[in-house]
Amino acid sequence: MNEQYRVNGERLWSRLMAMGKVGATAKGGCNRQALTDADRDGRELFMQWCTEAGCELRIDAIGNIFARRRGRNNDLPPVITGSHLDTQPTGGKYDGIYGVLAGLEVIEALNDANVQTEHPIEAVVWTNEEGCRFNVAMMGSAVWSGKMPLQDAYDLTDSAGKTVLQELERTGFRGTTAATHTPVKAAFEAHIEQGPVLEVEGKTIGVVTGVQHMSRHEIHIDGVEAHAGPTPMAMRRDPMMAVADFLPKLYSLAEQQGPQSRMTFGVIEASPASNNTVPGHLMMTVDIRHPDHHCYHTLVEETYRLVQQACDRLQLPCNLHCFWEAPGVEFDPDCVNAVRRAVKTGGYEHMEMVSGAGHDACNLADVVPTSMIFIPCEGGLSHNEAEATTSEQATAGANVLLQAMLESAAN
Amino acid sequence: MNEQYRVNGERLWSRLMAMGKVGATAKGGCNRQALTDADRDGRELFMQWCTEAGCELRIDAIGNIFARRRGRNNDLPPVITGSHLDTQPTGGKYDGIYGVLAGLEVIEALNDANVQTEHPIEAVVWTNEEGCRFNVAMMGSAVWSGKMPLQDAYDLTDSAGKTVLQELERTGFRGTTAATHTPVKAAFEAHIEQGPVLEVEGKTIGVVTGVQHMSRHEIHIDGVEAHAGPTPMAMRRDPMMAVADFLPKLYSLAEQQGPQSRMTFGVIEASPASNNTVPGHLMMTVDIRHPDHHCYHTLVEETYRLVQQACDRLQLPCNLHCFWEAPGVEFDPDCVNAVRRAVKTGGYEHMEMVSGAGHDACNLADVVPTSMIFIPCEGGLSHNEAEATTSEQATAGANVLLQAMLESAAN
Repeated sequence: MNEQYRVNGERLWSRLMAMGKVGATAKGGCNRQALTDADRDGRELFMQWCTEAGCELRIDAIGNIFARRRGRNNDLPPVITGSHLDTQPTGGKYDGIYGVLAGLEVIEALNDANVQTEHPIEAVVWTNEEGCRFNVAMMGSAVWSGKMPLQDAYDLTDSAGKTVLQELERTGFRGTTAATHTPVKAAFEAHIEQGPVLEVEGKTIGVVTGVQHMSRHEIHIDGVEAHAGPTPMAMRRDPMMAVADFLPKLYSLAEQQGPQSRMTFGVIEASPASNNTVPGHLMMTVDIRHPDHHCYHTLVEETYRLVQQACDRLQLPCNLHCFWEAPGVEFDPDCVNAVRRAVKTGGYEHMEMVSGAGHDACNLADVVPTSMIFIPCEGGLSHNEAEATTSEQATAGANVLLQAMLESAAN
Repeated sequence: MNEQYRVNGERLWSRLMAMGKVGATAKGGCNRQALTDADRDGRELFMQWCTEAGCELRIDAIGNIFARRRGRNNDLPPVITGSHLDTQPTGGKYDGIYGVLAGLEVIEALNDANVQTEHPIEAVVWTNEEGCRFNVAMMGSAVWSGKMPLQDAYDLTDSAGKTVLQELERTGFRGTTAATHTPVKAAFEAHIEQGPVLEVEGKTIGVVTGVQHMSRHEIHIDGVEAHAGPTPMAMRRDPMMAVADFLPKLYSLAEQQGPQSRMTFGVIEASPASNNTVPGHLMMTVDIRHPDHHCYHTLVEETYRLVQQACDRLQLPCNLHCFWEAPGVEFDPDCVNAVRRAVKTGGYEHMEMVSGAGHDACNLADVVPTSMIFIPCEGGLSHNEAEATTSEQATAGANVLLQAMLESAAN
């Protein structure tokens, strides 16, 4: 370990600010949706910086960008780090971007210190992590790690009917190297937490040991439309009565499964949405997460049972189905240990945590040793133009990344 | 009482079917929204039948149509009956129409029997009862009874920006008599129940003694948008947690206030309506009704208290406000008694009930002695193309109307 090596926090911050001007929104955020002109401009700016830093650049067939700093032995698998440059339509300046630019900063810090690593080091930009324009999140890393066929990714269309392939070609990012994973010594991803825990706990660094099990479900309940006045309560088939039954039970269930439970009802819609008509239909979604496999399954199974029980009691037909599920991830122990040691080297206030959100690192973890580093974000805000972190926190995270990569690339 | 007089049920039914062809929809309902061409055609058909039945017609300044059968003493105030011919966009063949055509049938039955009443009798069509095209329900009767200024009604616009005045003139229904109430001996309105109670109880006639107190309220709760994964439950400001708290309590509250309570949550919307985001805002409506003044006020006050309490507990800013209220109505005891006697004369299975919906009769009751007669509708369905009643039930209701009007018009 070389604790004398430190990143240049001012350079990192100035680059975050410079990248934030590409696709900047009036409220201080960014709109650089995947493979738009703004995304292209952001990628080109990154590549310009990488070239200036002496990196070798390659782009794969799904547009993932790899910026390599050569090591002593370039036949060894690289130590890689990266995230994404694309944003939500009203996204912030840090989600993803921070991880990419922290990777570049590691390379530049090594240049400044004139350090040669045994393994090569790469800073990576994964294509279309957000999944908002083309509706598959973490697309580029999914193709690279073999989870998604290249052609399926090419065929994704945006709301205007344009395909990923068309937009890759238009922006000049359909690269020539194969979009498949090659051996990697270790992969790290630095990211803002996207939650409030580090801030609330007063910690600078989150040592991320894995990712929650998570799934999303739709609940559909049929009622019988009836006039709000003449229809006695006892003669109604009212889906909202089912909600009144199961909703408090589901929140209690989450509580029973401990503080790491997550239960979110983000969408709820009654139809015909007339204020004097008992709803004929109710749709709502529930997003369920837990890092522990057993607790997660208990949450899902009990949710289904409690919703069904409420609907049965009221004789309301209901349908529950899962429309998205991502199994939990346990990060590589060696990578996590490298981060643990790096945090100690830096002397940062830290805590171990499980990511509640999906990241490119989740895809990578399937095929290469991977872990993540979190830094706080103000108020836990993310996917929001007001997303914020501090230069000190960004510097701390990049220093941890530097130390972990130095250790991993040493031999 | 003259129990030998009976309406001609076949004629009544054939006219209901004929009127149902005007603005007929593919699914067997009607689309005759107020002051459209279809509404004009329906009104003209009604006036043609009235002319053939020897009635004198007059139209007032808001388009209400009065078809008078002269009595022995035409200086006496008339006994009137009526309802509306306009429908919802996907309305049925009976809501309102039945009350108008039952009134015409009373006149024709009296013609057939060659009976002269002391007081004149009038069948009335009130303009724009539905309030769906021009967004004030029971508009024509509101103007006539002095609740709504004529000019305010004239100025109402539809979604295309056309005013009531323009459409009255275009359809030829801006009449010449004043749209203000004149002395009336008694007013009756026959109507389908628009609820399931008569059918469930196996009754043919509802003797309507009044109308529920009713009001509609919007509940707005602010949360803090947060990512479904990283944000611990205990750190959330989640409006759905407030719903989980107050919703079961409100249904219990309705139960505590007895079987005549009505509590309906017709609209509920979380925003930004993202399945993996804690809602930043929740809007829902509650429609509250009860025939008893004290119980009604308890329902409203406790609803406000319980919602506020839940939001306070969770530190969620909330706003509740009433956007519509209609005080309850007690119908005129003499008119109700006339209906009670008429039901006995006819020997119909009947029950006393309170209307859960608003009707033109509610406006009339402010200024003239008024009551209502309900007949069953299949499954309680209304405002629906599948709305249905039977010829026997329609005939029974018209016979009750005939007897009540005969009695009232006798002296």
